[in-house]
Amino acid sequence: MVYSSQDQIVNAARRIAFGIHRTLVLQSAFLNSKFESSLFFKCENFQKVGAFKSRGAVNAVFSLDSSEAEKGVATHSSGNHAQALARAAALRKIPAYIVMPENAPRVKVDAVKGYGGIITFCKPTLEARELTLKKVVDETDATVIHPYDNLKVIEGQATAAMELLEEQPDLGIILCPVGGGGLLSGTALAAHYFSDAATRVIACEPAGADDAYRSFKSGKLLPSINPTTIADGLLTSLGKITFPIIREFVDDIITVGEDSIVEAMRLIFERMKIVVEPSAAVPLAAVLERKVDVKGKKVGIILSGGNVDLNHLPW
Amino acid sequence: MVYSSQDQIVNAARRIAFGIHRTLVLQSAFLNSKFESSLFFKCENFQKVGAFKSRGAVNAVFSLDSSEAEKGVATHSSGNHAQALARAAALRKIPAYIVMPENAPRVKVDAVKGYGGIITFCKPTLEARELTLKKVVDETDATVIHPYDNLKVIEGQATAAMELLEEQPDLGIILCPVGGGGLLSGTALAAHYFSDAATRVIACEPAGADDAYRSFKSGKLLPSINPTTIADGLLTSLGKITFPIIREFVDDIITVGEDSIVEAMRLIFERMKIVVEPSAAVPLAAVLERKVDVKGKKVGIILSGGNVDLNHLPW
Repeated sequence: MVYSSQDQIVNAARRIAFGIHRTLVLQSAFLNSKFESSLFFKCENFQKVGAFKSRGAVNAVFSLDSSEAEKGVATHSSGNHAQALARAAALRKIPAYIVMPENAPRVKVDAVKGYGGIITFCKPTLEARELTLKKVVDETDATVIHPYDNLKVIEGQATAAMELLEEQPDLGIILCPVGGGGLLSGTALAAHYFSDAATRVIACEPAGADDAYRSFKSGKLLPSINPTTIADGLLTSLGKITFPIIREFVDDIITVGEDSIVEAMRLIFERMKIVVEPSAAVPLAAVLERKVDVKGKKVGIILSGGNVDLNHLPW
Repeated sequence: MVYSSQDQIVNAARRIAFGIHRTLVLQSAFLNSKFESSLFFKCENFQKVGAFKSRGAVNAVFSLDSSEAEKGVATHSSGNHAQALARAAALRKIPAYIVMPENAPRVKVDAVKGYGGIITFCKPTLEARELTLKKVVDETDATVIHPYDNLKVIEGQATAAMELLEEQPDLGIILCPVGGGGLLSGTALAAHYFSDAATRVIACEPAGADDAYRSFKSGKLLPSINPTTIADGLLTSLGKITFPIIREFVDDIITVGEDSIVEAMRLIFERMKIVVEPSAAVPLAAVLERKVDVKGKKVGIILSGGNVDLNHLPW
């Protein structure tokens, strides 16, 4: 297993500080009272580009040596990683080649363009995306930055929980959503290195996209098959790098239903007065379903992002 | 003209500190760049009960002497003031008698009950509300706490801008929404007493409920006549106490259109990732309409609250 050292995460935090927000940690008296717990929400919805992805992207881009960097970076993504990578590349004044499916939402295409990303469109299949990315890389010699199966990305994502633990070093539990596992592996490593207490890291996953749950329980890397969930940031499967880190450093994985995700998301809007995307509400959904015992405990919750289509809120 | 002294506002801040949040001041890189300005948003949407009204209510309730207090407080309101007053009374362990129209939204009735408020329903007319309130007061000898035309309420509301100016003492402008004028008179007094610079206070009002604009420009207290706006917190008319303070200490009043209010509200959700009510978006609407020149200036914006019906967002 390869995983990052404490120093590598500390260095990531130093490297990216100029280009990301140290995000707020919020509490809600209502939610604390409702769950008889002390919940600390790490607000990555307030992060640059509206999601934690900025951390990993900036760390990966600024970890390249100058000869690599000048050729640019590349990825295929239609989500937050595409925007985050385009922005990180713009900060370093290098090209970002982004492969996007031709049916990607206009608003996401415009956002990548807004950060100066160079877009190549392809058919909306994983095969076409990978083939197109390979072609782009053959032509440009750009470095591919995988959205999660990349140690520099993981180290960047780890800085969110690291910051949270700097403020609250004695958390009993940290709850974290899991898709491809970049944020989760980073969070688990941060808890391993920076917690004062034996902070347990518990991953929360939609039941409709439960590859991480099945992989964790079986000990074998099992892919998602036709995953379906409102939490569109969590459709991806664990990777070859993230899975072993998760097996080693994550304490448990819990799955939650779609109704609970929507209820949790709405609670966050109504009671905390902040905008989060469905993926960010998955950990609170696990608390709502009483699948994790938070009573009397100090609990960190990573709110992964706030990029949600306000025209189609799910209630 | 009667208005509060600097000491009275400082005392209000001390009096209410135990029972309200010192709210965050947020910035948005996107909005700063869009308007070539430095905008500081005072987030009263994060305040207790979701609105600045908690400040005035706690100050009014805790300013009563004990013989007054034990008889309780009373008001007629179906909005944020009802909840804020019920909560403030609960903090002092005294009764709060709230007169509400029988057609008040269920969620608002439940919220007042949740804080232990004693509700009397009446017909949904101003006449019925005032008559019913008089009856309740005759029976209970409770002290009526007007939602805005009350110096203790105004002093409480003033603490929001006071806090903002503690963090940013050299603001060139503060933009503030105006309905009945409680928040606005408090803001103007705070700028008068606590600003390092000659901070201009500019009120922002929906064109469809422009009684403050007309009163300010004519020098006569003119009531709203069938006001209509999505900013439902701003339907009320200026009062006998708030109007003279506004005439003396407010620099200008601007009116804005409904479309701009919706656009501003959506910008705040999308770019700042926070939930605000339409009334809170009225100052940014004035910036969007270019009715106030913010270019190159430091500008404070009071986001008055975040109590919005998430089932009926206006876009």
